[in-house]
Amino acid sequence: MNYRRFFGDAIGRLRNERRYRVFADLERDARRFPHATWYPEGASSTTGGARDIVIWCSNDYLAMGQHPAVVAATTAAVQQFGAGAGGTRNISGNNHPLVRLEQELADLHGKEAALAFTSGWISNLAAIGTIAPLLPNCLIISDALNHNSMIEGVKRSGCEKQIFHHNDMSHLEEVLDAAGPARAKLIVFESLYSMDGDIAPVGRIAELAKKYGAMTYVDEVHAVGLYGAHGGGICEREGVMDQIDVIEGTLAKGFGTLGGYIAADEIIIDAVRSYAPSFIFTTALPPAVAAGAHAAVRHLKASGEERQRHQRQVALTKAALTAANLPVMDNPSHIVPVFVGDAELCKTACDMLLERHNIYIQPINYPTVARGTERLRITPTPLHTEAHIAQLVEAMRDIWQRLGLPGKAPRHMTAAGIGTAVAAE
Amino acid sequence: MNYRRFFGDAIGRLRNERRYRVFADLERDARRFPHATWYPEGASSTTGGARDIVIWCSNDYLAMGQHPAVVAATTAAVQQFGAGAGGTRNISGNNHPLVRLEQELADLHGKEAALAFTSGWISNLAAIGTIAPLLPNCLIISDALNHNSMIEGVKRSGCEKQIFHHNDMSHLEEVLDAAGPARAKLIVFESLYSMDGDIAPVGRIAELAKKYGAMTYVDEVHAVGLYGAHGGGICEREGVMDQIDVIEGTLAKGFGTLGGYIAADEIIIDAVRSYAPSFIFTTALPPAVAAGAHAAVRHLKASGEERQRHQRQVALTKAALTAANLPVMDNPSHIVPVFVGDAELCKTACDMLLERHNIYIQPINYPTVARGTERLRITPTPLHTEAHIAQLVEAMRDIWQRLGLPGKAPRHMTAAGIGTAVAAE
Ligand SMILES: Cc1ncc(COP(=O)(O)O)c(C=O)c1O
Ligand SMILES: Cc1ncc(COP(=O)(O)O)c(C=O)c1O
Repeated sequence: MNYRRFFGDAIGRLRNERRYRVFADLERDARRFPHATWYPEGASSTTGGARDIVIWCSNDYLAMGQHPAVVAATTAAVQQFGAGAGGTRNISGNNHPLVRLEQELADLHGKEAALAFTSGWISNLAAIGTIAPLLPNCLIISDALNHNSMIEGVKRSGCEKQIFHHNDMSHLEEVLDAAGPARAKLIVFESLYSMDGDIAPVGRIAELAKKYGAMTYVDEVHAVGLYGAHGGGICEREGVMDQIDVIEGTLAKGFGTLGGYIAADEIIIDAVRSYAPSFIFTTALPPAVAAGAHAAVRHLKASGEERQRHQRQVALTKAALTAANLPVMDNPSHIVPVFVGDAELCKTACDMLLERHNIYIQPINYPTVARGTERLRITPTPLHTEAHIAQLVEAMRDIWQRLGLPGKAPRHMTAAGIGTAVAAE
Repeated sequence: MNYRRFFGDAIGRLRNERRYRVFADLERDARRFPHATWYPEGASSTTGGARDIVIWCSNDYLAMGQHPAVVAATTAAVQQFGAGAGGTRNISGNNHPLVRLEQELADLHGKEAALAFTSGWISNLAAIGTIAPLLPNCLIISDALNHNSMIEGVKRSGCEKQIFHHNDMSHLEEVLDAAGPARAKLIVFESLYSMDGDIAPVGRIAELAKKYGAMTYVDEVHAVGLYGAHGGGICEREGVMDQIDVIEGTLAKGFGTLGGYIAADEIIIDAVRSYAPSFIFTTALPPAVAAGAHAAVRHLKASGEERQRHQRQVALTKAALTAANLPVMDNPSHIVPVFVGDAELCKTACDMLLERHNIYIQPINYPTVARGTERLRITPTPLHTEAHIAQLVEAMRDIWQRLGLPGKAPRHMTAAGIGTAVAAE
């Protein structure tokens, strides 16, 4: 049997739909972030052809991956403890820096305990996939725009699920009501949706959960480190951390390193720790990664400076793009989506930004967002200066003119909470 | 609804079955491996109570996590590139050290391309879960003792599966034959099973696959770095890398760091890269982890010294334990299982080894292995000296006497390929 053909066909389908992706080959520079080196195809450090660019789409939102305290803690830990954990959590891999990181994360969210995973993706798969089936006949009530990792957790749980319209509280209430008080219910949602940048009414969800006797599970992946007085996320900012049962986060975005986690009551953590195959049967996070993440969490707990400067640079970027008549899709967060509305043009615009202006922004096309809502997704960090912003605006104006791109997003897409994402990365 | 109760019940069930696990809190020391610091409950670096111990159950089999080249490469990369990747592979996370690591891994296995994941667990989930459903009506033919991550991949694929008796070639042939030549078939198996230490007849599996027109997928997680002239694993040693379609490995055991990978034809890699949600929707491995893993792979490709010394220390350990009448379960690999046959005693033996002799070996109980086959699983590394081995034998004799543990494994358990593992970690 010619198996290659099937894989070739699969790739062909993506190419036909203009969905085939090529990853930009980048080399970050810890001392010059957001500057980086881009290796166009064929370029290498020996043959040359590499170029200096500015990254405008990093999810290292606060540039903590480059923070001296994080770099120093990671470096010291690699030298002291070595490069790996050497085993699963149960078989020699449970390293002291990781244990301490978990204590810090529990404290950050005001919970009894926390559990770290090798990624946020795995933390959602493991936690949702384990918590729900431990509840008898659990109904999972899931926001329509939840991230792939949450959907995988829901699937893996084998539980029945009901989807509520994105951030729609009356629909959520309907679903809760229909399920009835006797049934175990788990509401899963995100606090901040990463492609539209809209924020969930976390307080209201907590209220409804209480009223109808449901458990709550929130993904704060795009908010931890960034919001709240100590970087505890949207739920900290809204003062409702104690009203949410399980808070899930990542160490790879606001905290700049790698890994994911959940924070909750000790008994819930213990159950996930003891039952989740995707936690049990895999090597633990290396001590050096844990130490680096710990340094980032600790730093952002004490310092609000990065958060303030981040919000400031975001506001400046939004204002400057808007003033230049570029179609910023409005929202109340640090995400700056700029409307294009066509997959081919979106890709071309990004290619040209890179080629002509040394600016790297990844095109966001279907299936990450709905067709017709293709966009540039810009993420300013505290290290993007006013000069960087000016350069960005100039470059985008140039590309917008050359390609005749729309000056406005369709009216219904400029409001927050529109929900155009489909499978956000 | 009182949700806490359900989690409490779940934990209670584990306690009742004596399956509740407590993770040993360890601090490795890169300069003194296999020595480490153990923090018993309540101990800490400030309050004291920590103890110096020797780790005898690490899956950092070659101690590459402590290798100067690996530590240096990781350190340099953290300082140069920062602590994290900053995004998914598609959105700014595709870092140059990771791209170069993939090229090295492809070369190691003589394949066109390779793809790295944040863990071996994810690589199996992603690859099996993606490859099989791209083949029309694919039948997955799976070894009975495959690792949880492979089973999760099979489940996730949604494809029909048939299990063949562990390493049983006539049963495999029967299943292949029954499936018929017209049907797409994927054989998934491990090259080296980690709890019994038995090795699959990889050459014979490749032959059968050819004869019956099946694709082959091998998990070499416990073999890469350790076997073959360049550390390519059992398939390299047996000269059959080119006859296996997909080779999966980890960077977290023989290569001492973190992450997993597959190596295969470019078109297969491209399909997994383009279709696997567990690859697409998660932050990429940090450049520093990739650089450290790369250093380990490169070093072990050129140097056979670690492999030789590893095999030598394993042989010495097996011989010394056997000479002391301790029930080593025979096998042709670097795994040294010592039979206990009772969960409670197995745990007690390990506790006493740690308490009385400062030796850390994790008890291996159900569900990791079948009930009645509980064991100590010892993994000598090149850095375990003759003095360490003598101390180990002395300590184990002491515990065996105190607890009156069996001097022999039941006859059918001493032969290789017995297949007593259930859900190996
Ligand atoms: C909402 C959400 N949850 C979880 C994840 C996964 O987190 P991680 O990158 O740490 O795997 C992502 C993106 O990566 C995400 O956008
Ligand atoms: C056979 C096998 N495959 C895959 C894995 C997972 O690899 P990793 O630890 O890199 O997630 C393991 C154990 O951890 C394993 O034993």
